[in-house]
Amino acid sequence: MQRRITAVVVGYGHIGHSAEDALRVADDFELLGIVRRHVEESGKKSIYGTPIVSDIKELSSTPEVALLTVPSRLVPATAPQWLEKGISTVDSFDIHTDIPALRQQLDAVAKQHGATAILSAGWDPGSDSMVRTLMEAMMPKGLTYTDFGPGMSMGHSVAVKMLDGVKDALSVTIPIGTGLHRRMVYVVLEDNAKEEEVRNAILKDPYFVHDETHVTFVENVERLMDQGHAVQMSRKGVSGTTHNQLASFEMHINNPALTGQVMVAAARAALRMPHGAYTLPEVAPIDLLPGEREQWIARLC
Amino acid sequence: MQRRITAVVVGYGHIGHSAEDALRVADDFELLGIVRRHVEESGKKSIYGTPIVSDIKELSSTPEVALLTVPSRLVPATAPQWLEKGISTVDSFDIHTDIPALRQQLDAVAKQHGATAILSAGWDPGSDSMVRTLMEAMMPKGLTYTDFGPGMSMGHSVAVKMLDGVKDALSVTIPIGTGLHRRMVYVVLEDNAKEEEVRNAILKDPYFVHDETHVTFVENVERLMDQGHAVQMSRKGVSGTTHNQLASFEMHINNPALTGQVMVAAARAALRMPHGAYTLPEVAPIDLLPGEREQWIARLC
Repeated sequence: MQRRITAVVVGYGHIGHSAEDALRVADDFELLGIVRRHVEESGKKSIYGTPIVSDIKELSSTPEVALLTVPSRLVPATAPQWLEKGISTVDSFDIHTDIPALRQQLDAVAKQHGATAILSAGWDPGSDSMVRTLMEAMMPKGLTYTDFGPGMSMGHSVAVKMLDGVKDALSVTIPIGTGLHRRMVYVVLEDNAKEEEVRNAILKDPYFVHDETHVTFVENVERLMDQGHAVQMSRKGVSGTTHNQLASFEMHINNPALTGQVMVAAARAALRMPHGAYTLPEVAPIDLLPGEREQWIARLC
Repeated sequence: MQRRITAVVVGYGHIGHSAEDALRVADDFELLGIVRRHVEESGKKSIYGTPIVSDIKELSSTPEVALLTVPSRLVPATAPQWLEKGISTVDSFDIHTDIPALRQQLDAVAKQHGATAILSAGWDPGSDSMVRTLMEAMMPKGLTYTDFGPGMSMGHSVAVKMLDGVKDALSVTIPIGTGLHRRMVYVVLEDNAKEEEVRNAILKDPYFVHDETHVTFVENVERLMDQGHAVQMSRKGVSGTTHNQLASFEMHINNPALTGQVMVAAARAALRMPHGAYTLPEVAPIDLLPGEREQWIARLC
């Protein structure tokens, strides 16, 4: 038996629970604890014997890697706190346009303190980014389209919830091809709100104004929610001087479960790579797997 | 403009021509020459101004990397000759079961002489191996099936050509799912050969005995040949503790064109990695692309 990698999960929402699940079934990891800001809130001090703490000083030892399952906007402030202790980090930061800046920020901190950060290690950005990169290498000229859904969009759902007259909302992303999406919005109105006013506010919102959007008023959105999501990526392009090369990648997955699993895989890679910060396309796929390389080369090549 | 990587193509069959095409359209490469055993055979001394030589001493300078497009069985003897000169190599060695041994052999030579070898860098083994590795990381439990075709199988065609009574033959691989394949065999008979004898010999051949095989006798197989091929890989498995996670990767491609392009991409990676020998799952996808990482992270993550 190899020595096990010691890890903590930071944050304990949907992704935190999934990361915990994935760590428990990974033989090469030891889950030292779950770190939450406010332990009192949950009332629990442990789960399946794993301590739930608000500070790692309460743990028996210092982890090698921290899986940061906090909201994306908190990652730039949270990751350095761990890296500064020499603890490597993995996050699933998903604000695509801010990835280069976060990488630069974490790279400096990680190198200074002898740690490694793997950022944006969910499925998109994350494993999808690896596939897009590979497709680009296979066909240097051409077009890649990423079509999401069907599945719920957190960002779009929150945007609707913030509008006047909305008690609760769910926005489902439907792929219509070539990277375009239909938005199916399900809204529970406040008591005195008017349907037409809320519908118009949604259609004019920057999150929806460029997309085909359909608003449906319902009694309850909880009953409509499932964690399934999907993606289809396709590239048609040119290899060398040969046109019409076609490749596609498709998934139908439980969203937080895949995110948690990819984060665990990235945690392995973090401990194998030189100090610094990396996105997933910068990681060799084999470093995501446990144990020695040779067994995987024999099985997967 | 960045400094260009100097390369030669070794061998000049279908894949050699495709590798040459891919190098010519890659701005970050300079093709120094094509190296063939017997230059006299082709009669040509150059193509588009690129010298065709039988020895690299005839070239203006020593290349940094050699793309070995010789038959797979010649790779174990050919690659060390280049590595011993400190020249990195890329090959598309496709005898799956012999990959671990070749990697071990080339790793020792490459490290000793300060070079890097990337082996089995076509599409299967090659880019497909990277996708299989990623899928394994995303769903550590489950089954992956690789279904090839429709497309011609060189190995199966050659096996038929070697049988008594066969003048020419083509074996086309048809996927029937779950990693099983139907073999459609097209045969031109020798003048005195009997259809039933040849058919029985094919059905009993180790290449065909386990597969559903259909033999058709034709006047000419040249007219049936095209270089298109296809693959579908699918994995259904478990992320963490969540079952029924589904992913698939599909391609329809010109076979030598994609092989040549992947070899060129791997040549970039070879010059970026520590000395030694690697399969493609050991290569970070971003190292397959030209130029600085930052631009690709911003575009592909």
